[in-house]
Amino acid sequence: MAGETWRDNRIDIEERLDALIAELSPQEKIAQLGAYWADQRSSGEIIAPMQDVFSNGRPPFEHAVRDGIGQLTRVFGTSPVTAEQGMAQVQAAQRHLIEATRLGIPAIVHEECLTGFTTLGATVYPTALAWAATFDPDLVAEMARAIGRDMAAVGVHQGLSPVLDVVTDYRWGRVEETLGEDPYVVGTLASAYVEGLQEAGVIATLKHFAGHATSRGGRNHAPVSMGERELRDLVLPPFEMAVRSAGARSVMNSYTETDRVPAAADRWLLTDLLRGEWGFEGTVVSDYWAVAFLKSKHGVAGTMAEAGRLALHAGLDVELPDSSAFLHLHADDPDPQRTEADIDQALRRVLRQKFELGLLDEGWAPAEPAHRDLDSAENRGIARRLAETSIVLLDNSGDALPLAAATARIALIGPCADDPSAMMGAYSYPVHVLPRHPQFGLGLDAESLPEALRAELPGAQVVVERGCPLQAPADENELARAEAAAKDADLAVVIVGDHAGMFGKGTSGEGSDAPSLDLPGEQGRLVERILATGTPVVLVVLSGRPYAIGRFVGRAGAIVQAFMPGVEGAGALARVLAGTVNPSGHLPVQVPHGAAALPHTYLAPPLGQDGDRISNLSIAPAFPFGHGLSYTRFEVTGLDLDRTEMATDATVTATVTVANTGDRPGETVVQLYSADPVAQVTRPVRQLVGYARVRLDAGQSTRVAFRLHADRFSFTGLSRRRIVEPGEIVLSAGLSVGDLPHTATVVLTGPVREVVDPVLLTEVA
Amino acid sequence: MAGETWRDNRIDIEERLDALIAELSPQEKIAQLGAYWADQRSSGEIIAPMQDVFSNGRPPFEHAVRDGIGQLTRVFGTSPVTAEQGMAQVQAAQRHLIEATRLGIPAIVHEECLTGFTTLGATVYPTALAWAATFDPDLVAEMARAIGRDMAAVGVHQGLSPVLDVVTDYRWGRVEETLGEDPYVVGTLASAYVEGLQEAGVIATLKHFAGHATSRGGRNHAPVSMGERELRDLVLPPFEMAVRSAGARSVMNSYTETDRVPAAADRWLLTDLLRGEWGFEGTVVSDYWAVAFLKSKHGVAGTMAEAGRLALHAGLDVELPDSSAFLHLHADDPDPQRTEADIDQALRRVLRQKFELGLLDEGWAPAEPAHRDLDSAENRGIARRLAETSIVLLDNSGDALPLAAATARIALIGPCADDPSAMMGAYSYPVHVLPRHPQFGLGLDAESLPEALRAELPGAQVVVERGCPLQAPADENELARAEAAAKDADLAVVIVGDHAGMFGKGTSGEGSDAPSLDLPGEQGRLVERILATGTPVVLVVLSGRPYAIGRFVGRAGAIVQAFMPGVEGAGALARVLAGTVNPSGHLPVQVPHGAAALPHTYLAPPLGQDGDRISNLSIAPAFPFGHGLSYTRFEVTGLDLDRTEMATDATVTATVTVANTGDRPGETVVQLYSADPVAQVTRPVRQLVGYARVRLDAGQSTRVAFRLHADRFSFTGLSRRRIVEPGEIVLSAGLSVGDLPHTATVVLTGPVREVVDPVLLTEVA
Repeated sequence: MAGETWRDNRIDIEERLDALIAELSPQEKIAQLGAYWADQRSSGEIIAPMQDVFSNGRPPFEHAVRDGIGQLTRVFGTSPVTAEQGMAQVQAAQRHLIEATRLGIPAIVHEECLTGFTTLGATVYPTALAWAATFDPDLVAEMARAIGRDMAAVGVHQGLSPVLDVVTDYRWGRVEETLGEDPYVVGTLASAYVEGLQEAGVIATLKHFAGHATSRGGRNHAPVSMGERELRDLVLPPFEMAVRSAGARSVMNSYTETDRVPAAADRWLLTDLLRGEWGFEGTVVSDYWAVAFLKSKHGVAGTMAEAGRLALHAGLDVELPDSSAFLHLHADDPDPQRTEADIDQALRRVLRQKFELGLLDEGWAPAEPAHRDLDSAENRGIARRLAETSIVLLDNSGDALPLAAATARIALIGPCADDPSAMMGAYSYPVHVLPRHPQFGLGLDAESLPEALRAELPGAQVVVERGCPLQAPADENELARAEAAAKDADLAVVIVGDHAGMFGKGTSGEGSDAPSLDLPGEQGRLVERILATGTPVVLVVLSGRPYAIGRFVGRAGAIVQAFMPGVEGAGALARVLAGTVNPSGHLPVQVPHGAAALPHTYLAPPLGQDGDRISNLSIAPAFPFGHGLSYTRFEVTGLDLDRTEMATDATVTATVTVANTGDRPGETVVQLYSADPVAQVTRPVRQLVGYARVRLDAGQSTRVAFRLHADRFSFTGLSRRRIVEPGEIVLSAGLSVGDLPHTATVVLTGPVREVVDPVLLTEVA
Repeated sequence: MAGETWRDNRIDIEERLDALIAELSPQEKIAQLGAYWADQRSSGEIIAPMQDVFSNGRPPFEHAVRDGIGQLTRVFGTSPVTAEQGMAQVQAAQRHLIEATRLGIPAIVHEECLTGFTTLGATVYPTALAWAATFDPDLVAEMARAIGRDMAAVGVHQGLSPVLDVVTDYRWGRVEETLGEDPYVVGTLASAYVEGLQEAGVIATLKHFAGHATSRGGRNHAPVSMGERELRDLVLPPFEMAVRSAGARSVMNSYTETDRVPAAADRWLLTDLLRGEWGFEGTVVSDYWAVAFLKSKHGVAGTMAEAGRLALHAGLDVELPDSSAFLHLHADDPDPQRTEADIDQALRRVLRQKFELGLLDEGWAPAEPAHRDLDSAENRGIARRLAETSIVLLDNSGDALPLAAATARIALIGPCADDPSAMMGAYSYPVHVLPRHPQFGLGLDAESLPEALRAELPGAQVVVERGCPLQAPADENELARAEAAAKDADLAVVIVGDHAGMFGKGTSGEGSDAPSLDLPGEQGRLVERILATGTPVVLVVLSGRPYAIGRFVGRAGAIVQAFMPGVEGAGALARVLAGTVNPSGHLPVQVPHGAAALPHTYLAPPLGQDGDRISNLSIAPAFPFGHGLSYTRFEVTGLDLDRTEMATDATVTATVTVANTGDRPGETVVQLYSADPVAQVTRPVRQLVGYARVRLDAGQSTRVAFRLHADRFSFTGLSRRRIVEPGEIVLSAGLSVGDLPHTATVVLTGPVREVVDPVLLTEVA
């Protein structure tokens, strides 16, 4: 009878929740807050299919078989399965839950999806840092919709993306997974991803909340030293945007601790701020094993039970990837009543999403296994456009690009020159899982760069030499061969950078942090050797982070930065080099000049900048944030404000003119920055407040209007509240933070205003 | 008549203050809060003596001539003067103030005194990092008394030392000025310095309050990212000890901002915490130009007047080195009443110190100029003992030390091998000022290392080769000569490291920050070349910071670390090498293995340590904090607690036995660490809670008792208050944080206790 009430989708969800929660036993409640991962102890071998585990009910999973389970962990994303095989596993598990558990509650199925659906044979899109280089929210949303469609079609409900960590230290291995160093770029592009994924019916998961990117020394998981003002102004804004504006339905905690409080146990962060201030109503899920880490790694809990209760009380609703800690929630509990209340609250959030997904409607059944092409031509088209749009032309002072069609001999040199996996981020299935299963190859078709370049320049002879390994010491003979190839060629294209891989298996990726920003291994020496041949050089950095390449600037004829452009990356890069595609990516991070003075990003206050001459270390980048050239020429020719004075709650419109003064069509990214020369706390010298990707034909020009509410100039004041202060705001417009030819000032008048429900977005018209 | 009241030293000081303050005009009040530096615009030329300036009253100093002045800035520490000449300048200035200003108030005279009185011809003691390596508060106090005696004798009232910044990033140029990375070592040694200096009648100045060492990337003045808990537990404890326990009478602000609030404008820091919580009653003085920086560098004030009022209201009493901002305190003031009250409060603190110094007693007159030996034999004796005690024997696995008296040929190699100034810190007068006046040479006698080594080993032939410059590229011929010298010798002593110098004029010192922790320039290559000769090598690092020398460990026969041991350093080092002195210094910082993974010190929580394998970057040091060997052998053979359970306000005594099991007398430093495995916030894996320097004859042993109040296990909890929690505390004892053979546990019982007036010191018996 109870079942009749809560399965009836004509009744209000809150009523259905009341009815269902009343039915659940304490162990069934706890089961809904956890997850189940059949593969987790398999060390990567292909294990018994999930249905066996469920049908046998082997320990320690008997609880899932008996009491149900909240989520199924990475059915598609662990050992290699086809879409059809994965669907069969999901179907078996869901059927078990429906038929063999008392109340028949299906699980939410979650997967990783940073560079696409992380499963065998699915399209590998560019990594997030490359999306950021497009400065194109629409394109990112289109990709996320495609990813979501594929996931939803095979029965996945939640995707563990996007990453909203604002980069503060380029050494961190996960920089490739981020959207760069500017909170507004991160927030707008992550919001686009969230909207796209959720439009396709898949719950997006904002991670890592909060501070993961700011770990000390760029070391993964190291402590975060940060106060509340910096956290609120630098780290939190993207999350706030994705919650308030994009309606993200799930948030994942960061592994790190900030000012000695682990995020998974931080009630201020997960409840007071996230839910209280921002009104978040979705679920907070744990990063894998983060609840158990409260005991084993952070030392803020003495037992697993305490760890579980601490996280739950802080506001963490779902333990992933299993139920290591939450299963013990009732053990030796000094305050069972509070725990019960905390459980019911989390349960309500979890079950509300199951209701919203329709899982608890009468007659819901998992999809029947069927073939599904996860690497469709449509997907490939999106991946290609993203890759093409993301590639950044840093320097072309030697007019080395685009490659002349007449170039007879090209030496393609470097450890990233002929390896399709070098195009892919660490969270792509081919890099993340398939290396453990070499029999699968890449798992999908990928053109190599030499092939792509030969296709673009059929008249050219393309010779390939690795020159040196990525990280290992160089071999003098191999170096000499590369040198000889360069000498014999009309042009050398040197492709250096990273291979993605986790926990030290690559030079970029989770747990593959960099000891410095010098190119890994002896690649810097390789570049020097090729430059010394006198053959013109095009330097391409194909990497997951910016590297310190200042010493090559002005010596290479052109420099290109590509951030792991995905399975279509080789073709995209070849087309940019050949000029078939006019490059239009802009830097979402600085490219540092030298390897010193880390960490440093463009968002720094005035004291301690180069002009002070108070430290011998220069922090001036080789290429500034926002920089990106084109084969045509763009000019920003004016900046007009519709007012010179405004109240602290009014709106100002800044209009700029952008002209394509070159001789071919192209795209650029117009950028608007604000400065607040005098404030009650120190402020960045300049901060991006708006951007617009503009396509213009040769000779064409256009006006771009940025409409900014005064909230866009707000910041966290001495009192730790968000305020807008009266005083001058200086706006500047241009094509990077280092190229801002036009400046205009608006004076804010009136009292200091506290901002409670901020206008977070700049309107662009 | 008023003069009669306030000049009468039989009357209570507060009454005298009332009377004097009532007499002062607004401009005279402001004058007392500022300073005067005749030399400041001289770019180092020897300028007109101070009496000329006073007698001519040239702008912009007319205010000082008319209204008086609070402090005189570095009369002895700027252009080279003898003690007698400096005294004459002080006398002229004080006479002017007494005779020609309306109320006749003399100035406080302040000077730098980090490595000794920073003036021509004064003894250059080891730099602070070397004091820290002694772990010997008595010896530091003895030095400070000697420094204070010399300063007081020539009419100086205040010394701008010691530096209590806790090192968090070895790249920072001022690491040499600090007492290392442990708050308890910094606090106890700085307190000893304060007591010594103030016993001699000179006001000590604690700096830099607070956070200077934690600037981002080790770049001088860069922003500090830190929350309140870390600030309270890591950065503030030494200041609290020096205020509460040692009675320091002045504090200087840090240039930096923490969480976006510049220290000079931080009322919470300078007033609520310093005076409110700690009961500080002395003066807060600005670091040079820090008040003006609030406008020009931090952007938290729009005018100099606002900058001045902001600092004054925050609790900063005295502007140094001049009155750039405070002179404008009354300009366009929106709240003159508050400013007036702030001025009177600061003035009271300033004048109270002038009363206490006797400057305002009837008949006070400046000392008559006279010859004064600032480099006495007694000073030299202290400098020598400090230098000898500070040198750390890191490794002697090749039994290369002490040098055999029979060694026939020694090659002394390296850029620090034959340069007495390499022994001196950047704040020593010979390094800081004299290089601008080359005609003065070193300004005092200093033995060179080759001389000292020849004196110790009269039978040996000592050949000297530089090998390479300190920072500039190596010359192949010079390298080859060094190699040849090593090949020809029985032993090579390779002396690498730093030269001190400010703002990039050296490799260590204020504004000479390091891009990485590799030895500067090509010194690492020099070491490799000498090691490759096959001749046994003793590697000596003579530096202002620890360098990453892990790759040399086990290849050099012995490794010695000396932290700028001062004018007696060459002799001390020679005696340690020869074995005349048995080394007994211990590391106040880690010596890193490689140059990666920065910043990192030993005080880190468990997550993110090596064992996690969650980052590929190792943070294991080459030599751990507290490490230091001897030519004899020490063993810690037990750790007994007088109880296994204690209340959260009780005391426990931990007793260890230390034995000299070798064959010669020697000294070591016994160390006690605590661990708090489960707490409400993350805690360091281990933290030093007590230490004792022990001298033992061969075969002798002794018991050392550490008496610890439960407050010694307190920390800043979630609520940001200092608490003692119930639970296990694990104590370990040994000879470094990496060598702790004995462990014992005490269980704290009872409720969580908030600590208001903490017991800060561990008693050692």
